[in-house]
Amino acid sequence: MSSTATAPELTVLKIGGNVIDDEGFLASVLADFAKLPGFKILVHGGGKAATELSTKLGLTPKMIDGRRVTDAATLDVAVQVYAGLINKKLVARLYALGTTAIGLTGADFDMIRASKRKVETIDYGWVGDVEKVNAPELVRILKSGLTPVMAPITHDGRGQLLNTNADTIANEVAKTLAQDFKVKLIYSFEKSGVLKNINDESSVISAMSASEFQNLKSEGVIFSGMIPKLESAFQAIRSGVHHVVIGDARKLPGLVDGSSGTRLRA
Amino acid sequence: MSSTATAPELTVLKIGGNVIDDEGFLASVLADFAKLPGFKILVHGGGKAATELSTKLGLTPKMIDGRRVTDAATLDVAVQVYAGLINKKLVARLYALGTTAIGLTGADFDMIRASKRKVETIDYGWVGDVEKVNAPELVRILKSGLTPVMAPITHDGRGQLLNTNADTIANEVAKTLAQDFKVKLIYSFEKSGVLKNINDESSVISAMSASEFQNLKSEGVIFSGMIPKLESAFQAIRSGVHHVVIGDARKLPGLVDGSSGTRLRA
Repeated sequence: MSSTATAPELTVLKIGGNVIDDEGFLASVLADFAKLPGFKILVHGGGKAATELSTKLGLTPKMIDGRRVTDAATLDVAVQVYAGLINKKLVARLYALGTTAIGLTGADFDMIRASKRKVETIDYGWVGDVEKVNAPELVRILKSGLTPVMAPITHDGRGQLLNTNADTIANEVAKTLAQDFKVKLIYSFEKSGVLKNINDESSVISAMSASEFQNLKSEGVIFSGMIPKLESAFQAIRSGVHHVVIGDARKLPGLVDGSSGTRLRA
Repeated sequence: MSSTATAPELTVLKIGGNVIDDEGFLASVLADFAKLPGFKILVHGGGKAATELSTKLGLTPKMIDGRRVTDAATLDVAVQVYAGLINKKLVARLYALGTTAIGLTGADFDMIRASKRKVETIDYGWVGDVEKVNAPELVRILKSGLTPVMAPITHDGRGQLLNTNADTIANEVAKTLAQDFKVKLIYSFEKSGVLKNINDESSVISAMSASEFQNLKSEGVIFSGMIPKLESAFQAIRSGVHHVVIGDARKLPGLVDGSSGTRLRA
């Protein structure tokens, strides 16, 4: 921590699929993101567009144990939608809001190298587990005044693109840059934060330690998709990320200043 | 010319759709391009993938006077295929061949600003005419040792992406960088060059001046799509591009050293 006490601040904002699919959410978060001072990175997920395109192309989602399997045709759809349509629309919109952005996949600048997930019991197909983020190049881009917009596509360095979870991208980028910056990692989505009661948006847990998380998990208050998200968020804190917050994309200023969402602490 | 006599050399290579669609052509040109010494930029077109995707999505190509009209759905397909699938596959493959590349549209870094083509007699839809190439940023990327891979998508600076002809992108980039580099602009495709007899690949015109072009055009030897390509190529020469060659993508070393293809001269 001491090494980053005087480091410049960096906000890494992840926007999820539900945010991308809702123009109200998206317009709000992009306007707020463009206004954020200091260094910043936007990481985006997919949203319905990839599923819709797959359906129109007659691709059947392959699921094994509830996990999506990425075959070659599904990877092509992901690259088209994430790295093409969504990424470039976000870059063009941010420029219109005064933020000069650069859209990136892991292949560009060799920014995020990954390896195809090993087949143990399940072959997930063309899914990449992150091996290395190109920190010097990312720092250079940030310090030249540009804002990276990162799509959840990586590469293996041998010519193969890979599909990688957007939360993981945000996480790995935040951890890698914790050497050079005081990093705020913000997961924004359509809910107010981590809720005590999933049906009550006012039941936000405003702060949570790793041990509180373990308790809430064992009590069944936190469940399903929130568990891996929080586990990887706590791992980011252990790796030197200064500040992790989860909350409503429409309240970005509050997520940044600590007045909204759920803040995680070691 | 004198200002660029001692300027570093830059190769701007355009690869057309037929090259992208043929794995033999593509593998050959990428391997040769990766080996080229000095500064280089790859500009790519579309190929069949965009048409195939449009067909699968049930979009009917809208044509007015033989010109394709880009409606919103067609633009989305172009962004997906050009900026997503093709661009990122090229970037990943070049890295595997030892060339660290960065995939760009005009929106990234505000690299190519365009304006929606004015409606005179025909509304071409979301088609962009290039206004400005961001030369300082492109020079910075090149000088940092990276190779830009440019998709034929631009933006208007107000949040709108636009479809722009790939030959035009190559041309505008080459002209803009003629201030800083001694630029070789190479249009590569599936033919050996400009042919005297369209059915005879050995009838390549090895060199052609602007006045010879005018004669061949009026004699009907050069016709159809080759006319606008050559007109814009001669315009590039008049704007200070040192060297324009048109020829077979599988003979890139020859196109670079002047032993293959058709070289244009003022």
